[in-house]
Amino acid sequence: MSQTNIGDDEVDIVIGALHADLTSFLNEWRPLFSRFHLIIVKDPDLREELKIPEGFNLHVYTKSDIDRVVGSSYTAINFSGYSCRYFGYLMSRKKYIFSVDDDCIPAKDDKGLSVDAVDQHITNLATPATPFFFNTLYDPFRKGTDFVRGYPFSLRSGVTCALSCGLWLNLADHDAPTQALKPGHRNSRYVDAVLTVPARALMPVSGVNIAFNRELAGPALFPGLRLAAEGKLRWETVEDIWCGLCVKVVCDHLGLGVKTGLPYVWRNDRGNAIESLKKEWEGVKLMEEVVPFFQSVRLSQAAVTTEDCMLEIVALVKERLATLDPVFARAAQAMADWIKLWKAVGSGSGSSRPSNG
Amino acid sequence: MSQTNIGDDEVDIVIGALHADLTSFLNEWRPLFSRFHLIIVKDPDLREELKIPEGFNLHVYTKSDIDRVVGSSYTAINFSGYSCRYFGYLMSRKKYIFSVDDDCIPAKDDKGLSVDAVDQHITNLATPATPFFFNTLYDPFRKGTDFVRGYPFSLRSGVTCALSCGLWLNLADHDAPTQALKPGHRNSRYVDAVLTVPARALMPVSGVNIAFNRELAGPALFPGLRLAAEGKLRWETVEDIWCGLCVKVVCDHLGLGVKTGLPYVWRNDRGNAIESLKKEWEGVKLMEEVVPFFQSVRLSQAAVTTEDCMLEIVALVKERLATLDPVFARAAQAMADWIKLWKAVGSGSGSSRPSNG
Repeated sequence: MSQTNIGDDEVDIVIGALHADLTSFLNEWRPLFSRFHLIIVKDPDLREELKIPEGFNLHVYTKSDIDRVVGSSYTAINFSGYSCRYFGYLMSRKKYIFSVDDDCIPAKDDKGLSVDAVDQHITNLATPATPFFFNTLYDPFRKGTDFVRGYPFSLRSGVTCALSCGLWLNLADHDAPTQALKPGHRNSRYVDAVLTVPARALMPVSGVNIAFNRELAGPALFPGLRLAAEGKLRWETVEDIWCGLCVKVVCDHLGLGVKTGLPYVWRNDRGNAIESLKKEWEGVKLMEEVVPFFQSVRLSQAAVTTEDCMLEIVALVKERLATLDPVFARAAQAMADWIKLWKAVGSGSGSSRPSNG
Repeated sequence: MSQTNIGDDEVDIVIGALHADLTSFLNEWRPLFSRFHLIIVKDPDLREELKIPEGFNLHVYTKSDIDRVVGSSYTAINFSGYSCRYFGYLMSRKKYIFSVDDDCIPAKDDKGLSVDAVDQHITNLATPATPFFFNTLYDPFRKGTDFVRGYPFSLRSGVTCALSCGLWLNLADHDAPTQALKPGHRNSRYVDAVLTVPARALMPVSGVNIAFNRELAGPALFPGLRLAAEGKLRWETVEDIWCGLCVKVVCDHLGLGVKTGLPYVWRNDRGNAIESLKKEWEGVKLMEEVVPFFQSVRLSQAAVTTEDCMLEIVALVKERLATLDPVFARAAQAMADWIKLWKAVGSGSGSSRPSNG
């Protein structure tokens, strides 16, 4: 890594395989991925055999692994579709995880140079975040940047960054209505910035291109809010949005940071938004309840780990959201199951203590 | 204006003249400024005659105008140095004001094209801000951008933007210690983004390059926090930082927005930071009290205008800060005087009502 002291063996790259043929995807990423260990989780709904090119250090998990590890005790957990990648988060024992959708390839920056997404994400995570005061010249820990006049010196050491949210060139991450309304819209603006999302500000975290500190953010990244007609296209899902709100609320409570901006990936076109419209409206409607709920969440001083915080959020979801729509009751149960599973499988920081799952 | 319906006659450009010879400054800005009305306020400490090139539609205010308008009733108000520009804000009757330091010239963007800072600021102000949920693709009202999946539809109409904070290429806006530590540091990164600073996040607003809605933000932009040894270099001042905190707290309370990012200006080098060090340390020390104070401010529901909000902040400054350092007592008095003066001179939205100043 160029700017940090993070070893290659401290990173897992987790790919959810929603398509059987990963040849061109992995070949595009080969220059960046070949140094790292990969975890590939096959969507349990996918029938065909995976096609994976040679030359990678990787482990593939399939439906039989999921059944073996998860068994039948965690009925609210469903790893199908985009949620399959969460099984990889559960299996990883590395400090950092980078995860990218299998329809994305490396992007080029505004000078035409190939972007090293792994390096940028790890730099984002390994340098402090500054959630308590906004720096107008963006990430002050980036080379060539510093704190702007008036930034309190006592806040300049920053806090640990738990989540790094990358962006997308070409196909932006819109909901189905926006995508259907602007089918020709492409994101071509390369914004050369990383910034900490301020404390108490919420945001739509997209799972397309993220990296995180596994122990700190992993318990909040789980297969939870599944729409009734969730499909195999991003704009048909909100599970990552829900997780992002959980992570941000937890980070704000625990004094951790979330960054957004670089690195970009190039998202290839896929699917027909018009076809998805009738499914997505449910997600759009739910967000009107979800965002005010998360804005209102206040966690107790007793919650000192991400796992603690998540269990408090479970109780609040049951109390305030579950009565509005059964989808929220299922999400709460999935969260509770996930925390149990996370502890039982020994993914957490307390992996040496006896499992209570 | 390219993207908005704002007429040239709705904008005043206010320049504080800290240097007598404005020839090269105004000639650099001529292509952008010639359509607009300019207000030039001469630093009352400046002895020499101003040198102003021909061909501009402008009004110059000097010490005698200040003495005539302000008289001797507002003893806490001092328009010298960088504070002279505030007199221009008081005299303007336009909807929008753009103000830039007289050591800045137009910047070029990342493609080498000259930046139209006035147009960009007015676009920022005339399009909505989105302080209640962070959009990861930055300003959704910018051409080529939209809201990201998961952004609640009910928040997509946004709110009125009261303040647009521009940035700087070449000389960044550091405090004297940082400037002294990194004398060779130059900001060369052009970040092609505008974003709304989220509600409840505070930031170091720099007065170098700002634009604002005069009625909404003007009452909060005043000559207030003056350091004992305030000089004629930006890094020797914190008055703009203090005003920025006032504006942000007021905007958060009134449901208005603050944007930051584009446009950039090119800041020329000036002064010796080492010489300024002994002065600036006072400002650095004060910020440690100022930021927690503003983070703690909660205004009452009775405060429904910027003037109301400012008077509540005055009371809180007197109560919580004035005992720590006499500089805060003076700032509180200057704020109170400014609101009186603003009403008396008829600068506010209630300019038709009888003055109570």
